[in-house]
Amino acid sequence: MHTSAILLLHCPDQKGLVAAITKFIADNGGNVLSLEQHVDSQINEFFMRVQWDLAAFAIPREKIGDYFKTLVADRLSMSWKLHFSDERLRMALFVSKPAHCLYEILGRVQGGEWAVDLPLILSNHADHASVAARFGIPFHHFPIDKENREAQEQTQIAMLNESKIDLVVLARYMIIVGAPFVREYSGRMINIHHAFLPAFIGARPYHRAYDRGVKLIGATAHYVTADLDEGPIIDQDVVRVTHRDSVEDLTRMGGDVEKLVLSHAIRRHVARKTIVFNNRVVVFA
Amino acid sequence: MHTSAILLLHCPDQKGLVAAITKFIADNGGNVLSLEQHVDSQINEFFMRVQWDLAAFAIPREKIGDYFKTLVADRLSMSWKLHFSDERLRMALFVSKPAHCLYEILGRVQGGEWAVDLPLILSNHADHASVAARFGIPFHHFPIDKENREAQEQTQIAMLNESKIDLVVLARYMIIVGAPFVREYSGRMINIHHAFLPAFIGARPYHRAYDRGVKLIGATAHYVTADLDEGPIIDQDVVRVTHRDSVEDLTRMGGDVEKLVLSHAIRRHVARKTIVFNNRVVVFA
Amino acid sequence: MHTSAILLLHCPDQKGLVAAITKFIADNGGNVLSLEQHVDSQINEFFMRVQWDLAAFAIPREKIGDYFKTLVADRLSMSWKLHFSDERLRMALFVSKPAHCLYEILGRVQGGEWAVDLPLILSNHADHASVAARFGIPFHHFPIDKENREAQEQTQIAMLNESKIDLVVLARYMIIVGAPFVREYSGRMINIHHAFLPAFIGARPYHRAYDRGVKLIGATAHYVTADLDEGPIIDQDVVRVTHRDSVEDLTRMGGDVEKLVLSHAIRRHVARKTIVFNNRVVVFA
Amino acid sequence: MHTSAILLLHCPDQKGLVAAITKFIADNGGNVLSLEQHVDSQINEFFMRVQWDLAAFAIPREKIGDYFKTLVADRLSMSWKLHFSDERLRMALFVSKPAHCLYEILGRVQGGEWAVDLPLILSNHADHASVAARFGIPFHHFPIDKENREAQEQTQIAMLNESKIDLVVLARYMIIVGAPFVREYSGRMINIHHAFLPAFIGARPYHRAYDRGVKLIGATAHYVTADLDEGPIIDQDVVRVTHRDSVEDLTRMGGDVEKLVLSHAIRRHVARKTIVFNNRVVVFA
Repeated sequence: MHTSAILLLHCPDQKGLVAAITKFIADNGGNVLSLEQHVDSQINEFFMRVQWDLAAFAIPREKIGDYFKTLVADRLSMSWKLHFSDERLRMALFVSKPAHCLYEILGRVQGGEWAVDLPLILSNHADHASVAARFGIPFHHFPIDKENREAQEQTQIAMLNESKIDLVVLARYMIIVGAPFVREYSGRMINIHHAFLPAFIGARPYHRAYDRGVKLIGATAHYVTADLDEGPIIDQDVVRVTHRDSVEDLTRMGGDVEKLVLSHAIRRHVARKTIVFNNRVVVFA
Repeated sequence: MHTSAILLLHCPDQKGLVAAITKFIADNGGNVLSLEQHVDSQINEFFMRVQWDLAAFAIPREKIGDYFKTLVADRLSMSWKLHFSDERLRMALFVSKPAHCLYEILGRVQGGEWAVDLPLILSNHADHASVAARFGIPFHHFPIDKENREAQEQTQIAMLNESKIDLVVLARYMIIVGAPFVREYSGRMINIHHAFLPAFIGARPYHRAYDRGVKLIGATAHYVTADLDEGPIIDQDVVRVTHRDSVEDLTRMGGDVEKLVLSHAIRRHVARKTIVFNNRVVVFA
Repeated sequence: MHTSAILLLHCPDQKGLVAAITKFIADNGGNVLSLEQHVDSQINEFFMRVQWDLAAFAIPREKIGDYFKTLVADRLSMSWKLHFSDERLRMALFVSKPAHCLYEILGRVQGGEWAVDLPLILSNHADHASVAARFGIPFHHFPIDKENREAQEQTQIAMLNESKIDLVVLARYMIIVGAPFVREYSGRMINIHHAFLPAFIGARPYHRAYDRGVKLIGATAHYVTADLDEGPIIDQDVVRVTHRDSVEDLTRMGGDVEKLVLSHAIRRHVARKTIVFNNRVVVFA
Repeated sequence: MHTSAILLLHCPDQKGLVAAITKFIADNGGNVLSLEQHVDSQINEFFMRVQWDLAAFAIPREKIGDYFKTLVADRLSMSWKLHFSDERLRMALFVSKPAHCLYEILGRVQGGEWAVDLPLILSNHADHASVAARFGIPFHHFPIDKENREAQEQTQIAMLNESKIDLVVLARYMIIVGAPFVREYSGRMINIHHAFLPAFIGARPYHRAYDRGVKLIGATAHYVTADLDEGPIIDQDVVRVTHRDSVEDLTRMGGDVEKLVLSHAIRRHVARKTIVFNNRVVVFA
């Protein structure tokens, strides 16, 4: 496998967009590996992800962005990002007491499923220090209460910056993250909420699902924004429940959905397959 | 197939309930065809559905209720209902403009899938008079506006009573039903809401689902209560959608879920497999 | 909505394919409404579906094919087909005794969900003549036994040709269709098999599913080929079952899956979203 | 939570079975916590699982089986097994190279989700010795080839017996287990097959699924019998795939289904919720 370039972009829709972009690639000897586009006709916005092989590409890797900007993007008012298939994301994990998402992610990281490094696990509890140790991942305990929260978060942000973290994953982290932190990692912080949003925003969703007598429970992975559980949704799934299932059953069954939905969302993000626009996520296939 | 008796009951949990009920059946020569029980340990309530063959049952059909009341139910403070497998429910259908649930139900009624008769279709629009005519079902057009609503509903209730209707199905009926009507058909009026409740209660759920960028849309069949879309849930299901799907797509894809969920709910109700308690539905298998 | 052109094509993969095609559209003033491409890297084959608005397209509709052939397709060894969004397909329905798929399709045709006309229903039984009559669709009864089968099929083919049928749908038609008929409607004849292929090929799949004790049953819509139930698969789905479900239950529950899967497959075919290659179907989103 | 008794039984159906069993429990002061019964009317067999609280039960725990046998079971020709809620199963895990099911099970065992101890992991490869070490589980490497297979298996059986193993789980173990081993652990050995059985029995199911062009792939957990992949099915599930998914994609996506289906099956077995009869599994809710 050669290295390939991945271009994510969006702009107001107009004629000739795909032609212009693919001409740029073809003219310089690039072979398109995958291409997906979407026109949101309601808001007249064009979205695209294209990946091409750099093996015989005439423009040197470090100049592709510059050339694309000048020759294509600026003329067509595009918002765009260029990535390369050999980049690895640096991911930090935030957890609280529930461990199922932690184990899930550790198993996948260990198995090399994603192009990520995991240099940091942070928690408001000390419980999972030994799990992290088992997998050889540095673990940092940040006890948090009303008083110290802001200060602790500043320390966490500094630690993430120090570690050059690209992606923050809240893997059932039960603390609401403050506005400065959200801003710093806008579009780069993924949370798993243990409900089928927008149902059961906020605390104790399984208790509320039980009380409401729903017949399906779900989980939602979304980018974190300043509004609690209102961020753009990356993935969701559900599982069937019955009147026999207690709150404890819902919690256990929901856990299976949470860990898979969160993993799918991480996978999409890491593969550069998401574009956020108007609080909705375009998720490429 | 012989006629069988179906007993639905609930009462505070205590020792010996199943033994008492099954002894009553066995002592009188009844053969249990199916039996399902549930103990909600949170509220200490016992629920049961039992069906037995009447072929060699020693108590005459018309006296079973009386005997059961005296020998079992009253001693154990049971709420109970007795049904027989050869009873047919009389169902009335309320529809507005969307026709998919109407066609679905007509197809199933025509195919004899449920033990129901369908003597009445009512609508606030005249559109589907010809569909009803095709299937030979009397159709009644009740135009409804703010002024005439209460009066029209009184006429409808009278018509339903006249027709000895047991079950009212709101098959995408876009009018909010008034309190007297809800009271009259409490536990006997099923609505299909085109969203995964409690998400998107009220109007235009597909538009709101689109705006929120959800990745699954759903439908919910519930018994109608005085609180809009807050009634006890019988069945729910979802279908996966993507950023490519417009509101029109959601409406079409959701329609497939709506008609199946509504049909499943009707099936459960008609088979006497539901008990409502504390705004939750025990749905027997 | 203006008329749009829909181009389906495939060819050996090489550099510049998307650029060449989109340049053809852009150079002539076409606005791309949707574009999806797929490279099967295992066999190095490129597939594409592109749809563009003809409102301001410089090439007259009747000459687009010719121009595209000369300017693009022949140079790149493409297999291609050009369709237009205002074309309606003429569909014939074959049914036997089960009626659920018949009702499903009639409801959708009636509701105008697909761009199809339904001028013919054929059956080896007379049972559903009255259903067809209700919807005003000509119904033809072709009793079939070992002796007359070949002759009857010849008459059917002649009737379909006479009616200029584009698409044959076997909606739970329980007769195996002969080789000449299959050839005549290659890639234009869709069957629904009441099993999750390749499990339970052939007769009585629900009985065999019951005997095997499976926990899910399914249905498969596929293009018909000379090998029974081996044709390229367009869509599949499943539903969960338990030990409690009898063969009759499986038949009923499976019926719900069959009718939806068949409808989804028809929808894809009618929208020109399928390409068959190597007994696999590329199904565009 | 007090200790409770769990009774699993089946026998030819006849009148009075539930009454006889629940009378035995009620007469001795037992409180039924859950009860589920099933009559397979096709073969006239009755199945039941009943769990009752032993807190005030008049018969001492060690005599319950004897009393039940004499007073109920022998008179009604029942096959039955008695378990207690405080028993822990001893589970051995067999793995090969794929690690996802191993991680899944380790995470759940670690989290205390099941009432099991995991004293042994066996593998035909040395790869996962370090994973086992991390979790502190003894790991045994048994290289297997045509020559040594029978002998190695004898050693494995001896090791399992030595460790008093109750349940053998083949968690993507790629060696076909010999007849003596299967006999020894009949009804106590669970395998996960990476296909939706009975489709794709045997080797390389994802390759064959890809070639067949299926639109869903699945996994099946079953008790192992002498016939490869023909054992009674405990659980199955599927995931949707498209023409875009390569064999590698299917393998990865299928892995998520495998690990959940296997876990669900283990959960059911450990909770004493399965009865095997006629190569079908009654799975209680």
